[in-house]
Amino acid sequence: MTKGSKIPNPTIERLALYSRPLEALIESGTPIVSSERLAALCGVNPAQVRKDLAYFGEFGVRGVGYDAQDLLREIKRILSTDREWTLCIVGMGNLGRSLVENENFRKRGYLFFAAFDSDTKKIGIRLPCGLTIEPARKIRELVRELKIEIGVITTPAHEAQRVTDLLLDAGVKAILNFAPIQVWTPECSIVENVDLSVKLENLVYHLERLYKSEKSA
Amino acid sequence: MTKGSKIPNPTIERLALYSRPLEALIESGTPIVSSERLAALCGVNPAQVRKDLAYFGEFGVRGVGYDAQDLLREIKRILSTDREWTLCIVGMGNLGRSLVENENFRKRGYLFFAAFDSDTKKIGIRLPCGLTIEPARKIRELVRELKIEIGVITTPAHEAQRVTDLLLDAGVKAILNFAPIQVWTPECSIVENVDLSVKLENLVYHLERLYKSEKSA
Repeated sequence: MTKGSKIPNPTIERLALYSRPLEALIESGTPIVSSERLAALCGVNPAQVRKDLAYFGEFGVRGVGYDAQDLLREIKRILSTDREWTLCIVGMGNLGRSLVENENFRKRGYLFFAAFDSDTKKIGIRLPCGLTIEPARKIRELVRELKIEIGVITTPAHEAQRVTDLLLDAGVKAILNFAPIQVWTPECSIVENVDLSVKLENLVYHLERLYKSEKSA
Repeated sequence: MTKGSKIPNPTIERLALYSRPLEALIESGTPIVSSERLAALCGVNPAQVRKDLAYFGEFGVRGVGYDAQDLLREIKRILSTDREWTLCIVGMGNLGRSLVENENFRKRGYLFFAAFDSDTKKIGIRLPCGLTIEPARKIRELVRELKIEIGVITTPAHEAQRVTDLLLDAGVKAILNFAPIQVWTPECSIVENVDLSVKLENLVYHLERLYKSEKSA
């Protein structure tokens, strides 16, 4: 989905995963974490943790573990999550509303600065997060004014590509698309298409295998 | 996250991805698709498509392509998405409501048979999909009565593990967890933890690289 990266995407996704239990360990006052412990907390194997972290040079001390604070700081630096990002969202149905109120997004520095919809019945509604739903025709103006970097799309499928084009034209550089259709962007931008039903397909594949192994046992 | 599979998870996830444009191609009357075309439609490289499909034996004809109908049927058989699955969902906030109404879930055979919440203000509400929100204390009874196989969790973080235990105890075999915390299940069950903010971390990593390449250009 993304272009020109040397570190594999699955590693990048796992680095983000590793940061979750690290935050919890630091909050609970644990200074050192072993690759085994971190791996168990994330549901991956320890060799995978060591391999992923090795992409970024030397971390930790053999036989002791990683300094949790250092490791988290380094992961955030690598992922560029050590700063705040400005987001807007287009499509204020239930999914849009759940994302804009998501406490984890805010905690990690992903800040929604504008919310858009084309439905006149929704425009003007004040959301619990403090934003007011703006009409889609103001995308261009507000993206520029608020220096929005990332656009999140939660529209119906048939509107997603048009909204993508609008956002990019206004100056957004990256799109996270939840509409159930792949959207396309030129080479000079980043797009990630998220299809929530794909997660279920992965799940039922393994569930079917579980049923079969139970039957043959 | 899942146990005992021979085919790598990324391949399984890509098979689900491949099925999306195949559905569209078949609807538009295209009988044959090349690995190049399919790869372009999914944003992966053609060698990856061929490699993924090779896990399942011989498909397609060299230099011609794949029969779209055959390929889709075979992918659905492999993923066990050629039958219907019974789901329930716990946590009827905005995310829960968006998933339960998701047209793509229904189209692909993921059928929600029950929706639960512990908030007395939500219990009894009739949803657009036709379900009525049931109290969480009825999980055990309804999971058994309706033969629910998969539980989807969209509760706040602090309730997710308790709800997971309740669902498994009632007979659910697989959990798709959207709460912002990892939940744990015994070996005899399947769990997939979905963290939506991980997708953003992947995105900003690539966005930061894009900014750097623009600066140095």
